[in-house]
Amino acid sequence: MSSLTAFEAFALELVAVAATETLPPFRQEIAIVDKGAQRAFDPVTAADRGAEAALRRAIANRFPDHGVIGEEYGEDRPHADWVWVLDPIDGTRAYIAGLPLWTTLIALMREGEPVLGVVAQPYLQETFVGTRSASRLVRPGQPDRTLRTRPCPTLADATISTTDPALFADEEAAAWRGLRQSARLARLGCDAYAYAMLAAGQIDVVLESGLKLWDWAAHKPLIEGAGGQVEGWISADCGPGQILATGDARLQTQVRALLG
Amino acid sequence: MSSLTAFEAFALELVAVAATETLPPFRQEIAIVDKGAQRAFDPVTAADRGAEAALRRAIANRFPDHGVIGEEYGEDRPHADWVWVLDPIDGTRAYIAGLPLWTTLIALMREGEPVLGVVAQPYLQETFVGTRSASRLVRPGQPDRTLRTRPCPTLADATISTTDPALFADEEAAAWRGLRQSARLARLGCDAYAYAMLAAGQIDVVLESGLKLWDWAAHKPLIEGAGGQVEGWISADCGPGQILATGDARLQTQVRALLG
Repeated sequence: MSSLTAFEAFALELVAVAATETLPPFRQEIAIVDKGAQRAFDPVTAADRGAEAALRRAIANRFPDHGVIGEEYGEDRPHADWVWVLDPIDGTRAYIAGLPLWTTLIALMREGEPVLGVVAQPYLQETFVGTRSASRLVRPGQPDRTLRTRPCPTLADATISTTDPALFADEEAAAWRGLRQSARLARLGCDAYAYAMLAAGQIDVVLESGLKLWDWAAHKPLIEGAGGQVEGWISADCGPGQILATGDARLQTQVRALLG
Repeated sequence: MSSLTAFEAFALELVAVAATETLPPFRQEIAIVDKGAQRAFDPVTAADRGAEAALRRAIANRFPDHGVIGEEYGEDRPHADWVWVLDPIDGTRAYIAGLPLWTTLIALMREGEPVLGVVAQPYLQETFVGTRSASRLVRPGQPDRTLRTRPCPTLADATISTTDPALFADEEAAAWRGLRQSARLARLGCDAYAYAMLAAGQIDVVLESGLKLWDWAAHKPLIEGAGGQVEGWISADCGPGQILATGDARLQTQVRALLG
């Protein structure tokens, strides 16, 4: 068993660990803590923190020399050869509103590059997992389903998605409006679940900005393993947090022409 | 057994009838037909038409003197004492994008007033059903859960939702922006599932426009049975299709002050 295969099996264990913290409070009354002044309202739940703490304990027990970067508790050995990147509840607004489109995001980076990505929705019992060379949907009691992005040669035929156009800065919002006018259909409000649907060949383009490492690191190997692309708006660099995910490389070219 | 109780049991049968048509094509490649020039893109699937035809057959067999109004096949005895109002796939864009937030909407009207409402999501196996006096969530293998809207005295604490701000006319869009600025948290992209979450006490306000009878008729008894309100933006009349749903009557007053 290659180390990546072993890590993939461990990542599925981590999904179950996170679910023990995130699922019980879902759709119950939950405490909400404001994370600070950067954004007008950035809710974070006790479930989010509890899950990240549990994930960090599980990783420290199994792979004490691995690094961890998480949304809630910061960096721990961020320059290790292998670094886990965690966002136990991506889509806290969806979570708070009772909508089953929040996800648990887990990525594994090797020498700074994401090589394994997991997008899990525990209420739906869906785990999307990919390793840049292959991606699959794992569900209990069902055979794994291979994930493939769909061919979509032109933007006029594309289904596009962003979580909330109000999250874009002014010039970004104009870019989104241009993209929307050129595309067949737009879908809002999906958070990371949109990237899973792109890997599954249901959505063709996801455009977002302001994403942190833990918001996009899982998507890159998942979508690349399904045949798609996760890069920045302008270049391959995802670092600035403007993320353009496409299922067909021809769309990447067309969207960049609109964004440029 | 009162007639309404019998009709409620029959409505749950109808949910299963619709699911046999809507679920198998979900997340498969599906044919899309453009319904016309009114809107730039209004997708409708073979599943939508197949489900409505199956529902109409089931109603005609069981209650041949009842009327039926549906999105796909028009009106049949619309002035009967009892009229079923059908939208087999509300949220066709969500359906096409693989997102499990589309719903099957079934309402029963008595003398022009909706008295029974069902919002069902068959992929999640969730059926929200209400009769103005009581509402519940029905799931296979689980006890029914009573649905109650939550108290939320002020808009500043409210979670609000609309499917897509781009669907509003100009002055409506301004009203939405004002509402959003006053509320705690906004959530997009939910279609009718937002009303189910309002009945479940997860969302406090849903504001939409351009809704047809089949888009809102199911929500009114469901949400009223859970303690909330479904009315127009300005008055109690839902007919014009500007729908304001609230879980706490105090919010209805506050939102109307903003809208007026």
